[in-house]
Order: sequence, then C-alpha cells, then structure tokens
Amino acid sequence: MRVMGIDPGLRNLGWGIIDIDGSRLRHVANGVCQSTGAALADRLLSLHGQLTAVCEQFRPALAAVEQTFVNKDGAATLKLGQARGIALLVPAQFGLEVGEYAPNTVKKTVVGVGHADKRQIAHMVAMQLPGIAIAGPDAADALAVAICHAHHMGGAARLRA
Amino acid sequence: MRVMGIDPGLRNLGWGIIDIDGSRLRHVANGVCQSTGAALADRLLSLHGQLTAVCEQFRPALAAVEQTFVNKDGAATLKLGQARGIALLVPAQFGLEVGEYAPNTVKKTVVGVGHADKRQIAHMVAMQLPGIAIAGPDAADALAVAICHAHHMGGAARLRA
Repeated sequence: MRVMGIDPGLRNLGWGIIDIDGSRLRHVANGVCQSTGAALADRLLSLHGQLTAVCEQFRPALAAVEQTFVNKDGAATLKLGQARGIALLVPAQFGLEVGEYAPNTVKKTVVGVGHADKRQIAHMVAMQLPGIAIAGPDAADALAVAICHAHHMGGAARLRA
Repeated sequence: MRVMGIDPGLRNLGWGIIDIDGSRLRHVANGVCQSTGAALADRLLSLHGQLTAVCEQFRPALAAVEQTFVNKDGAATLKLGQARGIALLVPAQFGLEVGEYAPNTVKKTVVGVGHADKRQIAHMVAMQLPGIAIAGPDAADALAVAICHAHHMGGAARLRA
C-alpha cells in the first residue's frame, strides 16, 4: 500500500511517499515542489503540474495533507490556503481519498509528543526510514504526514513504531 | 474579447462571463458552482470540475478573481484560500492570465464607491447588463469582477460606464 504525504506551502510544497510493506514502512521518494512564476495563478499552475507529475510517477493509493495553520495574519493564511487547495485537489483528481491531519497529530504519531519542532520531526523520520536522503524540512514534514497516515490507516499496532 | 469574473467561495463559487463588444459590455452567462461531497478534497474536486466545464463551454480570453479577504478567523480564511486556489488554477490551466482585484477596487469600478454592499453591486450589475437573470449574489459579484476587469483591461474610457 503506497502512501503519499503532503506538507503544503505556496513557495515550497513538500511531498513524501512510503510503502506499507507488511508491518514495515519503506521509503519510496520525497521532494519539494517549488512554485515558479510571478503571478499567483501561474505559481499554483506550476505546483499543480509538479504534484501531478509526482502522482503519475509513483501512483500512491492513499494520500494525506497536513492541516497547517498560519495564525500570523490573514494574508499568509489565504496564501497557504491556496496552495493547500492544490495539495488536496491533485490526489483527488487521481481518485484518492485525502486524509487530513493536524500538525499536533502528526507530531504525536511520529515523535510521540505534540509540540515537537521541525528538527525533531526530521530526526524521527530519518530514524523510521533509515539511510534515506531527505530533500529538506518540508519533505521531512511530508514524510511525517505519510507515516502518520500509514499508522492511522494500516492499524498502528501492526506497524513498527 | 470575452471576460470571466470569479467570486471564490468553498460552498458557492460565483462566475460571470461578459463580452467586450466594441465600446459596450454584453452579458454571456453567469452561475454558481456549488461544492458537493463531505471531504474537503472532494469539494475542491467538484468545484474544479464545474469551473473547468464553464471554461470549456464559454472559452473566455481573460479572467479575474476577487481578492476576497475573511478577517473573521484563520479557519475561515484557510477555507476560502483553498477555494480561491481552484478559482485561480482553472483559468491558468486554460492558458489565461488571471487578474486579481481587491473588493474595494471592484466596488469603486462598478458602483463608484469602495464601501458598497452586495445589494448595490447586484443593482449596478443589473443596470450595466440590463435584462439578464442573475443566479444570486455570488454570481452578481462575479459579474462585477468581470466588469471591473473589462474596464481595467479594455481602457475604461472606451467603455460605457
């Protein structure tokens, strides 16, 4: 069972793909889609194209997106929401149900506590998927979302923690 | 020159299409895409499909989206942002440049003042496009965005106010 996790962002959209292989998780690929173009619509189109290519290449069966939340200001939240719209749309266009997880749920599942920082997440992801190269913190977050979804979908008891 | 205006929203996404016919504006069509489905990704997929069908049917050459802003709370802004992502993506997928207008700019262009309410907008849209049936306030707002874009793109002086 192949799971894709997405950490949405307008500038950097992280993605990570793992396989649930019996009771183990196996890393498939991870990366970051970077939006190009000056106009907002072009940046969203660029993200859509890149994320579609990832789905076409790796054909995940399950997908989940982090329910990120920016409380800084409305403009930043609106920007994030627009990228998140693309992150939810693309797997749905491939017929996938798309899970959503609050950052605290992802952290609790992967790190064991809800208030872990980005370094801790990257560390635990590297522990659970040893030896892989991670394309940066957004890709690490995306892999954490995929691991979280694998645990919630596949029955956490059967999976190596 | 055919112009599409979009008033984004997750529940109701208004759209309106007009032709710039010499110095006149002519109404083509308007409507509201209503998102169906329980999961957010399905609702965005539904909006994407409906708005794509509108673009396929009417083939606009120009598009513009209202820069709506919800200051109520972060969750509402994020929700709106996700719908707005789809509203910007679809015309970009048809190769269109997508203009963006702040609500005040739309109101100033269509009503003459920046603090007009929804009824005033609907009234002025009906005045500028006489005799048409408007599919509700979101469709009226979308037509207002299209009129605004027509004025800004086509040279306001040449268009009947």
